[in-house]
Formats: sequence, C-alpha cells, structure tokens
Amino acid sequence: MIQKASAIAHPNIAFIKYWGLRDEANRLPANDSISMNIDGLTTFTSVEFDASFQEDHLSLNGEEITGKSLTRVQKFMDRIRQLADVQVFSCISSENNFPTGAGVASSASGFAALALAGTAALGLDLTSEELSTLARFGSGSASRSIPGGFVEWHTDPDTGNSYAKSFAPADHWDLVDCIAIFSEAHKPVGSQAGMLLADTSPLQAARLQDAARRLEICRLAILNKDFAALSAITELDSNMMHAVMMTSNPPLFYWQPGSLALMKAVKEWQSEGLDVTYTLDAGPNVHLICLPNVLDILIERIRTFPGVINVLHGKPGGPARLVSNEGIGIAQK
Amino acid sequence: MIQKASAIAHPNIAFIKYWGLRDEANRLPANDSISMNIDGLTTFTSVEFDASFQEDHLSLNGEEITGKSLTRVQKFMDRIRQLADVQVFSCISSENNFPTGAGVASSASGFAALALAGTAALGLDLTSEELSTLARFGSGSASRSIPGGFVEWHTDPDTGNSYAKSFAPADHWDLVDCIAIFSEAHKPVGSQAGMLLADTSPLQAARLQDAARRLEICRLAILNKDFAALSAITELDSNMMHAVMMTSNPPLFYWQPGSLALMKAVKEWQSEGLDVTYTLDAGPNVHLICLPNVLDILIERIRTFPGVINVLHGKPGGPARLVSNEGIGIAQK
Repeated sequence: MIQKASAIAHPNIAFIKYWGLRDEANRLPANDSISMNIDGLTTFTSVEFDASFQEDHLSLNGEEITGKSLTRVQKFMDRIRQLADVQVFSCISSENNFPTGAGVASSASGFAALALAGTAALGLDLTSEELSTLARFGSGSASRSIPGGFVEWHTDPDTGNSYAKSFAPADHWDLVDCIAIFSEAHKPVGSQAGMLLADTSPLQAARLQDAARRLEICRLAILNKDFAALSAITELDSNMMHAVMMTSNPPLFYWQPGSLALMKAVKEWQSEGLDVTYTLDAGPNVHLICLPNVLDILIERIRTFPGVINVLHGKPGGPARLVSNEGIGIAQK
Repeated sequence: MIQKASAIAHPNIAFIKYWGLRDEANRLPANDSISMNIDGLTTFTSVEFDASFQEDHLSLNGEEITGKSLTRVQKFMDRIRQLADVQVFSCISSENNFPTGAGVASSASGFAALALAGTAALGLDLTSEELSTLARFGSGSASRSIPGGFVEWHTDPDTGNSYAKSFAPADHWDLVDCIAIFSEAHKPVGSQAGMLLADTSPLQAARLQDAARRLEICRLAILNKDFAALSAITELDSNMMHAVMMTSNPPLFYWQPGSLALMKAVKEWQSEGLDVTYTLDAGPNVHLICLPNVLDILIERIRTFPGVINVLHGKPGGPARLVSNEGIGIAQK
C-alpha cells in the first residue's frame, strides 16, 4: 500500500496583518487578518509514509534539513499522525520556486502544502476549514494559504475555532502582487520569534483595538474593488505592524533603507496617478499591489531601483490542492 | 529712550518628544516632554521698538522675511505688546549659526530668544516660568529653550499652566548631541502642521497613555547619569513618535533612507560597546546622543556616512539670556 501524496500551495500576502498571539500553545492570533494567495509563487510538497522509516526526514529545495527547522516539521507531523491514529514516520520533499525566508512567506505555503499532502497520504479527507486549522499549527499564516483567492482568517474567541475562509475567489479582482526583493538572506529574527515580542510594544494594544475597523474597511474595499480604499488601509496596516515591531523590546527593524526609499517612491507614483500600494511583512521586501494596467511600468521602475536584486509577481492564487506525485515541474529560480 | 534688547538661546533636543496638542488655541501639548539645550548652536536675536515703525519687520540670517513666517512672528509680537500694554511696532533681526528648518529646531531657539529680547526691550522683567509660558505660544518646544540644561515641560491639566523648568543644570552630565545632517532643506510638512494630524493615528492615544512612564524613566536616567537607561527610553520614544507620524492620515514619513541606515548603524555601534543613542525630531536629521569619550570616533564615522552632508555637535547648553546689542559674533555656517 502506497502512502504517498503531493500538494501545491501558494504563499499569501496580507493586507491586514497578523502579528502577536493571544494563546501561544493553541496558536491563536491576537487579531484576525485578510490576505490573498499569490499565483505563480508555488510550493510543491510530497509526503511519503513508510513503516521502514526510523524518523521523519525533510528535504527543502533538494537540501536535507536538520536542527530547529526539522524539529518544527516533526512536531507538525506528530499532529497529523495523531489525527490519523498512526505511528509511522515520513519522508518529506518540498520545493519552492521563490526565495526562502526573506519576507515572502515560504512557511505559509510550505505548511499549507504539507498539511494537505500529509493528511491525504494517510487517507484522511479533511475539509478546507479542518486543513486551515491544522496548517495554523505549523505557521499561523499557513492557515490563509489553504482556501483560494481572497481570504479572511477569523478566530472565534469563545470556541477557540480559528481558520481562514475565502470571501472572494481568485478571479474576483485582477490585482497583481509585484514583489521587490531586497534580500534573499534569512531574517535575523524570524516571524515566530518576533511576534512573541509584540506585547512588549506600548502600541500593540491600540493596534489590536483598531483591528476590527481595518478588517471591515479592507473586506469592503476588496468586495467593491475599490483600489483607493484598499491602498489606504493596506499601507496603514503595514505601517502599524512595523510601528509595533520598532517599538518592541528589543526593537525590531525589518525595513532596510531601500525598503523605505521604495515606500516613498510609491507615494510619489501614486501622486502621478498610478494604482499601486505597498505592504511589507516581517522582512525587507516590498510587496507592491497594483492593477494590471500599471504592471509593466512598475516592473521597469522596480528592476532598476537601488538595492532591488529580483522582482517576482503573481495574480491572486487558488487554494492548496493535491497534484500527481510526479510534480508540476515548477521551476527553481 | 532706546527700546532695544538682544538675547541668545539654544535649540533643544527632546528625549521624550512633544507631538500633538490637547488645546490648540492655548498651545497646550498633548503630553509633557523632556529635553536638553544644545550648547554651541545658538540663535542671536535683537528686537527694537520704535514709534516710527509702521509694522513689525523681521530679518532672519540677513534676509527680509515675509508671508506666513512673518505673520506668525507678528502674532507673537502682539502678545508681547499686550503684556506691556503698548502699541508700538518692532524691527527684529535674528541669526542662527546652524541650518534652519531641517530638524534642528530653529523655531525653539528663535522664539525663546525673541520672547526674552522682546519683553526686555519693552522694560518687562519676566520670570523664567513666565518667559517659558510666553515662548510656548510662538513654538511649543521654544518653552524648553528658556531654562538651562536638562528641562521638563509640564502642563497642569487643571490650571492650564504650561511651562518648562530645569531639573538639572547644564554641567550635571557631559552628554554630547552629535547631529548628522542629511538635509538642510525645509521640510515638506512642518512640525506645527504635522502635529495637528497626530490624533488621526490609531496609535496616538496609546503613545500618550504611556507618556508618564517614559517621562519618569527618562528623568531618573538623567538624574542618575544612567546612559543605558537613557538610551533605551530615548530610542523608544523617538520610534513611538515616528510610529504615530507614519500612521497618521495622511501619513508623515520624516525619515529618509539614510536616517534609517544611521539608526541601524547606531544599533551595531552599541553592540561594539559605544555609548551612543539616537533620536529624530520631525525631520531626517539624526541626533546621536553620546558620552564625550566616544565623540571623536563617532564624528569620524558620521562624516563619511552615506548621505550625511554636515555634522554639528554641542554639549548641554545654558538658558536663554540677554546679551549686549552688539551681538556675540556667532559664526554663520
């Protein structure tokens, strides 16, 4: 009996960010968040269970992974084994067609694809809500890479139910996420460690208190395809998250000087009439969300922007999905 | 009867910043603040009243000033005339030995020197508290350039009394403010206009709520000459003010990419063991507060730092004071 399955998932970019946990053990986020999946950027993950394996193995982009990253994945596989009530170990192979650990959330697509492939390999047939709940334990934002298109990750504070649901399909609005890569290096402080500092900022409580308002504005802006409204709330939310980071103890500065220069350039391009806005995750790379008619001019400007070493882009992406074990031939960069 | 007097005053750099007004008409700040005057940077101001003048005249660094800047000063002179119960106009000459309008608060030293020279020229002999109260109406931070050394500007919310007082003399602690100038141009949005936006930030209320705590830590750090404590609270307070600015509507980004690069460099220099910290007012210039033993190495590093066009520095400075009408021969840069 072959216990193997493969899945793909896309990273997502949040318009309303998740930063901070209300319950670390249960991976319950301090605030709800809204994102879209990014088509074209893809993680392909195969999981094989075999009674002969002595422990879980993980290869990422062809490299055998050990240490903390492996431990994190092994704990996640324990959770899948518990769901299926089995004790067998796995061999996991995962490939990204985009740089790992530099602000493009590879952990989101990684754990989304792993949740789907891992459970399918053991014959489990989980709903999207169950998969999103499971993926959350690998990486919070992975919960948002399970459903397709435009997604809201909501936590019910009474029941503790916490998963993401699509509120508009990928083809609802032809936005483009154009990512200016300033660094492909791993971050000095990863998101998981960084967000444990969120409550040390005197500004985090105010950020959380205002979250319902921002979520409402963002959801409506997407449903109404109102780019100006989306732009204003996306930049505010990004600036608010980085405000919390920069006022944490110790302070976290994910922005690089080039990131700031590009944010300022975006403000100038907006005054020229270009439909473009910016948002930054826990890293230096700048996600420029734009309408398709400005994509060409934007890419041209970003490619020559000081400090930018690569430009990626993608339309709204679909949900995590099973694929044949032979893979989909995604290109390594 | 000659109705002429001259005064000098120093700009000040705030460790705990003032940003936002609780009462715009009465120029009452949203929060108390702590600063030190900067010796060596000096404004020299002469005021002459003469019954033959048809209106107030103002020259700044030898240039005749008109428009909004003149109107602002004329309104301030109205206040002085009211205090002295006279109707006579004035001729004002003011000179700075440092660049105007680029984050080194020239309005602070300017209105402090003007308050003192203007009232003295009309024979008024105000106390430091009365002068500080008066200077506040020209520019909030000018209230802090009246008393000497290390200064706290406190507002009594019940009485509306609002002035700055020295809590340690200039020779209490031999700190140095070493200012990296990135731009000598006027700011696109000045402090007075910018801070009217403070309440549009979802983070301003939290910044204000936490102010008493930061003031207490800062005051004790200065009294105890505890550089590490001063460093942590100074950077936090600067980051918090800029967090509010960046999340205002519209957002205000006073930082330039070079400012951010220098802030990051300071964090590295700290890990080398250098006693240096940073703070930024409403402008791109970075004030590096340091102990005197690291001044030489700091100046050397800043002079060659990308984007820095000038470096100024000064020890804690004295109060605003009357000088002879011939001036003190302060150098123009």
